[in-house]
This record gives sequence, structure tokens and C-alpha cells, in this order.
Amino acid sequence: MTRHRPTPQVPRPRTAPASDDPDTWLVREDPVSAEELSDLESIFALGNGWLGVRGVLDEGGTSGLPSTYLNSCYEERELTYPEQGYAFPERNQVLIGVPDGTPLRLFVDDQPLDVRDDRPDRHERVLDLRAGTLSRTLHERAPHGRTPSSAPVRVTWTRLVSLVEPAVLGIRCEVTALDRTARVRLHSDLRANPELGDADGDDPRAPTTLDRPLVAEHRVVDRAGGLLAHRTRTSGQRVAAAVTHLVETVTSDDDREEAPAEARIAVAAESDLIRTIVETELAPGQRLVLTKLVAYAHSADQPPAEAGRPHDGDRKTGGGPVRPHDGNGTGGGPVRAELVAAARAALDRAVERGWAGLLADQRAYLDAYWADADVLVDGDPQLQQAVRFALFHLVQAAARTGDRPIPAKGLTGNGYDGHTMWDAEIFVLRVLTYLRPELAAGPLRWRHDTLDQARERARTLRLAGAAFPWRTIGGRECSGYWPAGTAALHVNADIAVAVLRHATATGDLGFLRDTGLELLVETARLWSRVGHYDDAGGFHLHGVTGPDEYTALVNDNLFTNLMARKNLLGAVETACRFPQRARELGVEPAELNAWRAAAEAMHLPYDPKRGVHEQCAGFTALPEWDFAGTDAAEYPLLLHYPYLELYRRQVVKQADVVLAMQDCGSAFTAEEKARNFAYYERRTVRDSSLSACGQAVLAAELGHLDLAYALLAESALHDLHSLGDQTRDGLHVAALAGVWIALVVGFGGFRDEDGGPAFSPRLPPALHRMRFALRWQGRRIQVTVEPDEVTYLLAADGPDGLELRHHGRPVTLVPGRAVTVPLPPAPDPGPEPASPPGRRPRRRNSQAPVEPVTAAPAAARRDPRGNRPGRR
Amino acid sequence: MTRHRPTPQVPRPRTAPASDDPDTWLVREDPVSAEELSDLESIFALGNGWLGVRGVLDEGGTSGLPSTYLNSCYEERELTYPEQGYAFPERNQVLIGVPDGTPLRLFVDDQPLDVRDDRPDRHERVLDLRAGTLSRTLHERAPHGRTPSSAPVRVTWTRLVSLVEPAVLGIRCEVTALDRTARVRLHSDLRANPELGDADGDDPRAPTTLDRPLVAEHRVVDRAGGLLAHRTRTSGQRVAAAVTHLVETVTSDDDREEAPAEARIAVAAESDLIRTIVETELAPGQRLVLTKLVAYAHSADQPPAEAGRPHDGDRKTGGGPVRPHDGNGTGGGPVRAELVAAARAALDRAVERGWAGLLADQRAYLDAYWADADVLVDGDPQLQQAVRFALFHLVQAAARTGDRPIPAKGLTGNGYDGHTMWDAEIFVLRVLTYLRPELAAGPLRWRHDTLDQARERARTLRLAGAAFPWRTIGGRECSGYWPAGTAALHVNADIAVAVLRHATATGDLGFLRDTGLELLVETARLWSRVGHYDDAGGFHLHGVTGPDEYTALVNDNLFTNLMARKNLLGAVETACRFPQRARELGVEPAELNAWRAAAEAMHLPYDPKRGVHEQCAGFTALPEWDFAGTDAAEYPLLLHYPYLELYRRQVVKQADVVLAMQDCGSAFTAEEKARNFAYYERRTVRDSSLSACGQAVLAAELGHLDLAYALLAESALHDLHSLGDQTRDGLHVAALAGVWIALVVGFGGFRDEDGGPAFSPRLPPALHRMRFALRWQGRRIQVTVEPDEVTYLLAADGPDGLELRHHGRPVTLVPGRAVTVPLPPAPDPGPEPASPPGRRPRRRNSQAPVEPVTAAPAAARRDPRGNRPGRR
Repeated sequence: MTRHRPTPQVPRPRTAPASDDPDTWLVREDPVSAEELSDLESIFALGNGWLGVRGVLDEGGTSGLPSTYLNSCYEERELTYPEQGYAFPERNQVLIGVPDGTPLRLFVDDQPLDVRDDRPDRHERVLDLRAGTLSRTLHERAPHGRTPSSAPVRVTWTRLVSLVEPAVLGIRCEVTALDRTARVRLHSDLRANPELGDADGDDPRAPTTLDRPLVAEHRVVDRAGGLLAHRTRTSGQRVAAAVTHLVETVTSDDDREEAPAEARIAVAAESDLIRTIVETELAPGQRLVLTKLVAYAHSADQPPAEAGRPHDGDRKTGGGPVRPHDGNGTGGGPVRAELVAAARAALDRAVERGWAGLLADQRAYLDAYWADADVLVDGDPQLQQAVRFALFHLVQAAARTGDRPIPAKGLTGNGYDGHTMWDAEIFVLRVLTYLRPELAAGPLRWRHDTLDQARERARTLRLAGAAFPWRTIGGRECSGYWPAGTAALHVNADIAVAVLRHATATGDLGFLRDTGLELLVETARLWSRVGHYDDAGGFHLHGVTGPDEYTALVNDNLFTNLMARKNLLGAVETACRFPQRARELGVEPAELNAWRAAAEAMHLPYDPKRGVHEQCAGFTALPEWDFAGTDAAEYPLLLHYPYLELYRRQVVKQADVVLAMQDCGSAFTAEEKARNFAYYERRTVRDSSLSACGQAVLAAELGHLDLAYALLAESALHDLHSLGDQTRDGLHVAALAGVWIALVVGFGGFRDEDGGPAFSPRLPPALHRMRFALRWQGRRIQVTVEPDEVTYLLAADGPDGLELRHHGRPVTLVPGRAVTVPLPPAPDPGPEPASPPGRRPRRRNSQAPVEPVTAAPAAARRDPRGNRPGRR
Repeated sequence: MTRHRPTPQVPRPRTAPASDDPDTWLVREDPVSAEELSDLESIFALGNGWLGVRGVLDEGGTSGLPSTYLNSCYEERELTYPEQGYAFPERNQVLIGVPDGTPLRLFVDDQPLDVRDDRPDRHERVLDLRAGTLSRTLHERAPHGRTPSSAPVRVTWTRLVSLVEPAVLGIRCEVTALDRTARVRLHSDLRANPELGDADGDDPRAPTTLDRPLVAEHRVVDRAGGLLAHRTRTSGQRVAAAVTHLVETVTSDDDREEAPAEARIAVAAESDLIRTIVETELAPGQRLVLTKLVAYAHSADQPPAEAGRPHDGDRKTGGGPVRPHDGNGTGGGPVRAELVAAARAALDRAVERGWAGLLADQRAYLDAYWADADVLVDGDPQLQQAVRFALFHLVQAAARTGDRPIPAKGLTGNGYDGHTMWDAEIFVLRVLTYLRPELAAGPLRWRHDTLDQARERARTLRLAGAAFPWRTIGGRECSGYWPAGTAALHVNADIAVAVLRHATATGDLGFLRDTGLELLVETARLWSRVGHYDDAGGFHLHGVTGPDEYTALVNDNLFTNLMARKNLLGAVETACRFPQRARELGVEPAELNAWRAAAEAMHLPYDPKRGVHEQCAGFTALPEWDFAGTDAAEYPLLLHYPYLELYRRQVVKQADVVLAMQDCGSAFTAEEKARNFAYYERRTVRDSSLSACGQAVLAAELGHLDLAYALLAESALHDLHSLGDQTRDGLHVAALAGVWIALVVGFGGFRDEDGGPAFSPRLPPALHRMRFALRWQGRRIQVTVEPDEVTYLLAADGPDGLELRHHGRPVTLVPGRAVTVPLPPAPDPGPEPASPPGRRPRRRNSQAPVEPVTAAPAAARRDPRGNRPGRR
């Protein structure tokens, strides 16, 4: 078996192209390397937030992870501890693979084609960010690797997961005979419980992959496909998957014909498998075209029509009444017949729409999305591509999520076991709130739906109110290491602040009253119980873990205290706004007074000697990390040092005080921000993918634009260039959202904290122009930043005008009229803060930004300076 | 099946007896209760430190734990974590059950006898603390419970685990026919991998019990027994067990005869089983006497002759050359034949010695032991019994341990998986050092033997020197919850201080040079690396866990810092005493200077506002525990509250500052001790069995004699009256040692810290007299305390005279001459410090101390005020 070295391809324009070069809308891979297949499965994943399909090869087989996921389709598994403890979660929830509809294997003259074994003349995969498709082209001219007898062919597969018909995966396969007649056979499988390749058993952060999670309940075979219905063993979930095939042959590119009689189609079934076999003979130049359509249904409930998108209103999804699934696995799902009917109905709609219709819908959806979401970064096509890649996966993670969680890896892999975490609220929902606010509301409603579980958890923890889980799928705490799990109580404030932000940005008072207030009240109750007053009247939150996981179980984590303060004040304000609803929630005036008092007395640890805020009480007195004695290969530190060492030193995995300065910026003076940033930048190793974007924001705010740009690039290239080492388990969706944050909140200087939109844009030297848009209370604001001036434009179809702040000064906008204002002179930011020795973010060469910085995942891994952020 | 309620019997003299009442040397149980069987298996365990046999019924079957253990005979088992972390131990070491030789089942007229099913007229078990035997007598007069046909009999079983022939278990069974002729059959088993009853699956602290840990390698059957040889599956250990039987019939109590022809003996074998069947018919008054002897050999090595006991010198144990076993399981054991020969040789010696000889040896050993070890507590027979029970199990845990660990449960059960922990050094070895110093040296040499593993662990932890495991059998870290495991670095200082204490108490410079110095040096290197200097020059130990497990990962735990200081200074002093050996260990003068400097700069956290030392930095500023809101049933707190709550409040599981004041008393003024004790007493819930004795010591020192007495009683009755809830898994050997500490260090006021023996005795009001003895540099000092005076007596056979301190004033002793000195008037200690609300230790009624406070385990459990100390 021959393996060749990979040269995965990122766009490499020979001359500097404009940032709107079409190549920046594409992500390509050329030769295939077994080593990189796993990363590329994540990078080439397709999804819509309800259904996710990894970029596996059509030949079948994966790199160890399941290929296909449905949001919240999980199995339960016992959590065992070497030493038990009270309230340690007893069961895990693990995202499972549902029946895999991707295999579409080609045999030419009875020889199987597999690029993992063969050496095609040309092989290319292209993820098209505007079309929303993954296409693959393969020329097999040379004699077959093992048997020289098969005929040369050209094959293309095109795959989409519909953003409009959320239950539907479509694959189009075209096989063209080249020089001579080819006997062509396609094996198209729908397979439950496939055998998975070897996962990486050495990485402690690898996901739990359950063996054969599904139990067959029902199987139907028909003329061109069939249906499989399964249930999980213990979580009480059911899933149905239906498949069908449309066959054509085509003699030339333009001249379509009906399938000739000799294109035979047959369906075979085995346990957990429906295999559709299509056979024909192709004369030279003749082409077989097969469209495979797969549709899913899940008992938890059916994929929703997209919220707030009237152009989708006429498309019904799912069929028949469906009882909601109980996330604890104790309730029953709908009867199987309803699930089968729902899958069939979705499949029928896809057949009716046809391949061309699905493609057209996909493009239309994305055209509308990009009109809002695209951020133009003129002057750095590589970054431009990465930005679009990030925003493409963002919409793939969120478009059809509905009232469900957005997992940390989206549906691009089952890393973190498919759990959702705090970064959904702090990173992903933040961006969605400004790009597509209706998509941010669903996951917050999901939090609201799980409130009973969070209240139960708070009781178990001997606390009050609600304690949301650190890791979960269905709402129950699944974190197995409590010092960096349950103790990270800030997740509760993160949810509350996401509610407040959504209300501010949308002005949606109904949401705030019906969904938001209860979340705010129950989390405020938690803080009120967790905290205590000291003798001098200060309010403290002890024994918690903040965002930085290189310290744990600390007192008065600054981020947590500031966010809890927002939480408490937001609860008071919202309860006063909706007094009737507050009374229904049992909120008494005395309780409001207690929350306000706690917020006002909240202790914010500060080291007067060093003139900086402390990440937690006593942090600045901890011994320093020995960076000089730390080898480059020892990052991420958590894989090479015990928590014992990490926790007791001044080494920061990810932005913590710096994140607090972004999210609660008004709590700091500009001087404090500068001192804090310099202090923590020096100690932050960015072993988490969530770090760089927050650092970029503060670096930009403080005028360190080159540093901000380097940090932005690190964030943007994290998965695409596999700078991290966990891309195989799925993309870091929050880090991808962080790219938008670094651009818009960082270089755009966008702030929302004081009740209205404010911008303080500054372009980094490498960029000529940046343009982004965001939504604000029903309006669309477009901001175009150039080196010396900024143009603000309120969309013409918005409700009315708006006053925003531009570098602190008011600017009034009226719909449809661009306003251009000059940028004030940049103050001298002083010397650039130092990064930890050996951890300086890689600078982009601003003279030649078009050169790829890292060409390939493998290359990045080999590069000792390559940053390898670790877990989250 | 009928179960009757238990009324386990502690001595209940009808009139107040003297403390030397023979009943205080006995522990009795009368009716059998299935509920209590598991506790009684621990209480009635026999052992010698090399071989341990639980007090299981002769009928066979256990309450879920294996019956028979050999020191360090363990199997390995993978440790799995819900979330992995760097340096989390990967494999556990679990003490396993070796072939069980206890079953000796009686059939009368073919009916099996089982007190768990039947209702005997009389049933009594007696543990005789002077004879070193467990005897059981049963009258079966009534018709058999299920079949009325069997003849009435009287049966006695007497069991011993030899303190002299450490490999030998002996059982004597006598069956006497009563009114009419009885057909009697005995099934005597030696069974490997027995099925165990149901363990308590709900308690997270229950031990790991491996199913069928042994693999049969070899079996021999002979005329009266046979031999089984096994190996473990993965840890690479081998074990052999040989059994034989001696049969007699006796017509009367005095008139022995040879076995008549009709006493048939047959041996059957199955997989893992050798069953010897003895059958006969007994006329009324006739008696069958069967002696069963079992001997073990273990590949780790052979049981040693007792160190330093010349009267044992002529007894060889084990046979043939035996290669030491590699504790990591990677090396090979001796060839099986050698092991088989060793077991046979031990069995042959036991046969030669005979039952009467074994009994006589046992009593002689114990007579010598009690002459040194007995503590007379005149005035409280119940306490007297408990003290003797404690000291009996202490010698059972240590007599033949040799250079091996003493597990936390001795060999009385496999609780804590049979691991040894810090309490071996701090409690058990401390007592042995003064009672039988040669028995304390072995476990310290074992620590020295495991130094390579500790050095490797330190490297893994990115530290220096040696990092000894928190839990282990073979020397590798087996702790699965690092915040209360690996982080408890004080275990290293505990070992070092035990070395220093042993050297002071014995004057054994050879031990100090050859074994002690390297332990001191490597642990000093650890502290030097762990600590750091602050800006003001203070030396700090951050991120550690002290003895109190209700706080964890703290900075500057006072106990740890004080013990580390002793460790550092002791290393310096010892290195200077043995410069040549120090040079061999690579100790440089600069290193000595660094250790001395660190010790002198060691930070000791103190709260000037409250005038007390802090258990750790910031402890006294933590919020208080809500004792008023804590239900009595919520103790131990760790089973009802998350660590999240426990860690961040001022609630103390077990003596920590108080233990520091005992072990490092000279670091505190008397006023500081009083203030500290009052402060921490109010916050210490005694959820660990290790707490009360240390509190008793300080209460006694401070003159709170009633409180000290109540705490002593709690410690003494902990297992015997099952005040704790883990007695079933084995006895708390360290707490049993703590009884001696509470008496001798507490009421005796014995201190050794400043280089010589000092006593400040005070009797609690309940006692008329207390007498104890201890060894000091080859001398035996006996101390008799009476209400107004103390008599010191240096044994006549000692080397020369001695000056000790009596309440601070010098007293000179010459061998063989008693010196009586008056007790100075007791200063007013002030009001008694308060205990936590709801956790006041139960007072003994000093008017009627002979009444049992708690009569039975079940009763104690039902009593809501019963203290239920939790995990260690």
C-alpha cells in the first residue's frame, strides 16, 4: 500500500489577488493523505445545526469518529471514578453516530476505487462556501494500482447538507468513461453502527465513541433504497433514516437522456445496512449520474423550520404529531411509525425538489446569509478565506439548531462527547445575536427548557436557584472533573449575560419576559447563595474556577465576579421591568434588594503594588512559571505538567482577566486595561482555542494592532491550518465565532455594553479595508473601515434612524444614507506587551500577506513554533 | 429463614470491676446477626502483619470481602477517569484474597449447620487478647431448624494466626455428641477465588474487590489435605497455600485416644478447591477433635523472622532461596517449586509444633508484648477493654510486617483497597517506635525500598527528589482523586519526621545513616523545589492539601509547612552528622544552605486579628459552615455535600492545625495553643477516624480533661462499637494506634520533640490510675499516674540512668528504682472549648463509667448522635 505525503492546498494566488478573489470562497485539498484525513473530515464537514455530516471519503470508512450526527441524539454511559465523590455526575451523555448515508463506492471493471490505496492522476476536494457543497473530482487514468485491467474514468461527487430541508443529505455522483468502455458499479450504503477506524487512543481529550450504539427496530427495502429505524439502548431515543436514488445516464455534458435499460438498480439489505447497487456500462464519453438522497428523523423532535425566515415558511419539515423527547431518557419517543413517516416525508420533499432545486435553495440561503455575515478583509486573501471558512461553519452550526444546544464542536465531530459548554453563550451566541439574532434565541430557549434540571442540580449541590451544567447535551451535568467543571459556576452568568445582550441587541421584550427573566432570576439566586460578605462588607465568591483552566478552585475570580455582578443587576432591572412575571417567579422586593446589594458590594481583587487586577485573590503573589525552562514541545502544558504545578503558578491557559475586560469593559479605566493586558499577556500561553480572539480584541482596543492582527490570524487559522491538535475531533466552533469577534469587536471596536452600538475602528497595517455588517434592534448597520475614515450605512429597509458612537462621539444615521467620518489620530499605545517567552504569536508578514504562513496541517505540527492550543 | 436481632456483647460487669478484670481481655459476641457479621469479621480478624484472616464464620461465605490476605499480595487494575489528566495514576493496586482456609463446615446426621439459618441454643464468639485466639462455642440442642432429625451436639472452633510462625493459620474444631449418637461430618476447605457475598455497592468508599483474582497453576492432593499454587493475572505475583489435618477422637475431656478406625478422612479436589472430609459417629459424650493447619507462601518474599526478637531466632520461616518480587509486577517471582516448598516447610513446622505448641508460642509472644504495651486505665473497664483491643490489633498489624507497608486497615479487610497511607507514619509507626521500635523500622525500610518509584514520580510531577505516593501497596501512586491525593505532599514530611523520631527514640545511628538519611535528603529536595520565596523573603508551599480533606489545594497549609520545616532541618542535621554518606547522595554544601534557608524562612500563616494560626492562607476569612442548618444525619458531610461547598468554608474534617500543635508543639506558645485549639475545635466535625485522638492530646495538654476523655473514648470505641460506618471494610488501624497516643501523649503528656523524654501527666476525673510503659534508647520507662502523683520506673535491665522532664522539671532515674513525684496543681484551663453544634463528643458518665455507652453496632447506627466518621 502506498501512502504519499500530503500537500493540502490553501489558496495560493500567484499574484496578490483582491480579497474578493473567488478562491477565497473555496477550501481545497489535492492529494489525499491518510494522516490528514481525520482533520479534513472536520474541515470538510457539512451541516445545518440539526444534521451534521463529516467530510469522510465516499469510499466509506472513517478515521475513527462517526460520520453523521443529529443534534441531541445521544446515548448515555456510566461515568466511573477511581474515587467517588458526592454529586459527581453518574452518567455521561455522548453524541452518537446515526446511520451513515455517505458511502458511495465505485467499482470499475469490478475493481474497487479507494484513494487511500490508489494513486489517482488527479484528486481534488473543494468546499464551496457560497454553494454550500463539498465537491470531489478524481481522474483515474493510470492503470489501477493493484490490477492494471480497469478502464480510466473521471468521477465527481458533490455533497450537500441542506440548510433549507434540514433533515436532508444529498450526494450527486457522476462517473464518466474516458478512453474506453468501462463497466461501472456503485455501492451506495445506508449503514447503522458502522465499524469505525482506530481512534487516537492516547489522547486523553479524545471523545468517547460508543461501539454499536443503535439497536435495529425496523427495516424497509424498496426499489431504489429503503429505511432503517433504530433506538438507542438506554437513552430512550429513536432515529429513522430513509434513502433513495435517482439514476440518469448522460452521453455528453449537455445532452441528457433517460437511463437506458441496461442501468440496473438493485437493493440488498443486511443487518443495519441498506445497500443500493447501480450497475451499467459506459462507452467512452458516456456518463452515469446518480443522485442519492438521505433523510433523517429523530424522536427528540423534528427539525424546525428556520425561525424568523419568512421565505422558508412554506416548507414544512417532519411529518405527523411528534411528542417531545424527555432529555433524561425516561420518557418515550413518538411511536416508530410517526418517525418513519417523518423521515419519508422529508425524503419525498427532497425528491420533489430534485438535485437542482436543492442546490438552488442552498445557494439562495447562503446568498442571504453572506449578505449579512461576510466580513471583507481587503489585503490578506489567506485571512479572507479563513474568515469566510469560519463564518460558513458558524451558520452550519446554527442554521437549523432550533431550541437545542450548539455543541462545542458543532456537529463536525463528537469531540468533548458532543457536549455544549460555556463558550456557546460567550462566543457563538454573541456573534449570532448580531448576525442572525433569531438563531441565538433558540439555544437560549433550550437553556430555559432545561431549567428544571439546573434547579435540581443546584439543590443537589446544596445551592439555590439554578446551576447549569458545565458540559451537557440534554441538560444534565456530564462533567467528570469537577475542579474544571462544576466549579466553573461562571457558566450561569455567561447564560444570563447572553440573555441580556440578546435583549439589548434585538429589543425583543417578549423574549426577555417569557424566557429571559426566569433565567436571570434563577441564576441570580445561585450567586446570592454562593457568595458571602466579609467583615468589611465586601461580597465574595469563593472556591470557583474561572475561564482560565490553569488555575482552579480559587477565590474571587475577577471574570466570575464581574459577570455575576452583571447577572445580579440584570435580574434586578428585568424583574422591575416585568413586575407581574417576577411575582409569578416568586421574586420578593427583599430578594431584589439582596441582589442589588450583593452586586454593589462585589469584591474585585486588585493588587495595588503591581497596579493590576488579580485574576483571582492572591494570583499575582503566586510563583511565576519557568518559561525559560519550558520546551516548545511541552505545549499544551496540560499534557506535560500536572495540575499540581499549573494551578499554583502564574501561568494562564486562556484569556481570563482579558476576557473580563472585553465583556465588562466599563469596569476598567483605560490605564487599568493597559496595565492588566500587559501583565496577563506576558503569562497567557494560549493553550486553549478560546484565548487568542479575546486577546486580539484588547490588543486592538489598546492600539497594539500588529499584535492584534497576529492573534486574529492564530484564531482564524486554528482549525483550517490545524494549528491546534484536536481538529480531527471536530472544529472549534467558538474559536471560529471568535474570528468575527476579533474583527468586529477588535478592529471594528464594536461595543454594546452601555446600551447602544459604539464603534472605534482601527485597521491593522496589513489591511486596506474592512467591511462588516451587524443587526441592531431590527436595523442593519454596515461599517466600512479604511485606513483614515469609516463609512457607516444603515440599510434602507430598516425601521428608522439611529445614533451610534464613533470613537466616543455621536454619529446619527438615517436609513439608506452612508455617512463617512474620519478616524481620529491613533494615540501612542506605548511598547507592545510581551508574550510569554516561546509563545509569541506568529506574525503575518505585512509586506507579503498573500503567502501562506503555514501550508499544511502536518507542516504546522512539525514546526516547533506552531501553536498547539489544547483542550478548549 | 429466621434472622434475629443482634445483641453483641461487650463486657457488662454487674458491679464495677477492677480494670484488670479478665473480661477486659476478651471481646465477646453472643447471638449472630447477619447485619453485624460484616463488622464482626473485622473486629474478630486475626493476623500478624504478614497474614491476615477475617473473623468469618466457619460455615464459609463472607459478607462480601475476601477472608484472607497476605501483606503486599495485590493485583493491578486499570484506573479510568471520566476526564483524564497528566500524571493521573493509570493503574491501581488492590489487595486480593488468597486461598481461604477458614471453612470448616459441620454436618450432623447429614444436616448442615449454619448459624445464619439456624437458631442455636447458645452461640458465642470470644476474641481472647492474651491468648491471641478467636474461639467459638455453639450448643445445638434444639432440633435442627429445618430438619428435626439431627442429634444435639456441642461444637467449638478455635482459630489462631500465629505471631511466631507467620505463615500459619490454625483451627481447632471439637464436636461433642450430647444426648444421643451423632453422625458427624466435617467439610474442611481450602478454596481459591471463593464467591463473595454481596458487597455494599452503594458506598462510594467501599473497596475494590476483584472477581476471581487468582489463576490456578498447580494442585496437590494428599492423604489429609493438599496444596494450591496460583498466580495473579497481571501483577506477576504467585501464592501457594498448603493444608493438612490432624484427627483425634476423645471420649472425655481428659482421656485422649487415638482416632478410632471408623474416623474416615478423604480428600476431594475441584478447580480451586481442596476439600478434606472427616466423618465419624460419636456416642453421647464422645468428642471429635480436628486440627486444621494452613500455611502460605508468597512470591513477593517470605515472612521474616521477627526483627530483634532473639527468642524467635531459632525459628526459620519459608524455605529455599527466594528472589525478591518486583513490586511493579514486571519481574518474575521465584519458580513455583520454591514457593511450594516454602509453604510445605511452614506447614511441616506447624505440624511438628502441634496445636498445643502453637497456642503456647502465641501466648508467650503476647505475654511479652503486653508486658511492654498494656496501658492500664483503672476506673473504666469498658475503656480498658477497648484500649487492649486497640493494642492487640496494633501488634496484629505489625508483628510480622517486616520491610513491608502497614495498610490503613492492616490485614483486617481490604478497605482503601489495602493501601497504606500517611497515617502509617503519623500514627502507627509513632506508637510502634515507643513500644516495639524494631517493628517501626521495617515499614520505614520499605519506604526506602520504594525510593526509586518515588523519585520517578517526582520526575513525572515535574518536581525534584522523591514524591511518595498518597496511596499504594507496592510503591506506585494509586490515588485516583488528586486534590486529596497527590496534592497531599505532606506525606513526604510525615515519612521524614517518622525517620527522625525513630532515630531520636532508639538512638539507632546505623538506621539513620543507612536508611534514614536518603529519605531525608530526597524529601528535602522535594520541598526545596515545591516552595518559593515571596518578595519579602518568606518561603511558601502553595497548592497543597493538608490533613484536613475538607479543604484542598490551599496555600501554606500550616501542618505541611511545619512538617516540611522539620524535614528540611532534619535533613541538614543528619547530612552534617554523616558527611561521607551525604556526599555519596550528591548533597552539596550549597544544597544544605538552601534547605536551612528555606526552613528558616518558612511562612506560617497567622491571623493577627483573630489571634490564631490559619490552617492555610486565608482560612479564617472563609465563610463559616452553617452548623445550625446541618442535620445530624448529614454527617459525614462528604456524603451529603459537594467538595465545592466543603472546600470553601471553615469546616474541618479532621485535626489539622491541632495535629500540627501536637507534632510540632514547640512552634507554638501555650497561649497560641489555647486560642488555636478553641478556634479549630469549634469547626472540626471529626468526620475522619484520625481526628479525635489528636484533639484529645491537645485538650489534655490544655487541661480540658473531660473533653479529652470524651475524645479518647470516641477514638477507642470507633471500631469496637462501630461508631464509624466503615468497620466492615476493616479496622482503622491508625485510629487504634491513636488510642495509645491519646492516653500516653495526651493524659501522659509524653513529648519527645526537644530531644529527650518529657511527661506532663494529668488523670481525667474518671480514672483512678493509669500505667503505661515505653522504650527510650534501649531503656524501658514505666509511668504510673495517679490523681496526685506519678511514679517513674526505669527497668532494671536497661543500660543506665536517664534524665526526663516531669511537668517541665528534671527528674533523674536510675534502673530499677521507682521515683514518685507529686503532680503540680493544675492551672485553670478556662472554659472548655465548644465543639461544633451537634457534634459534641459524647461524654462518658464519670459517675458510672462501667455502663456501656453503646451496646451494639446497630444501636450506635440508629442513634442520631452516634458519630459516623467518614473516609480517613
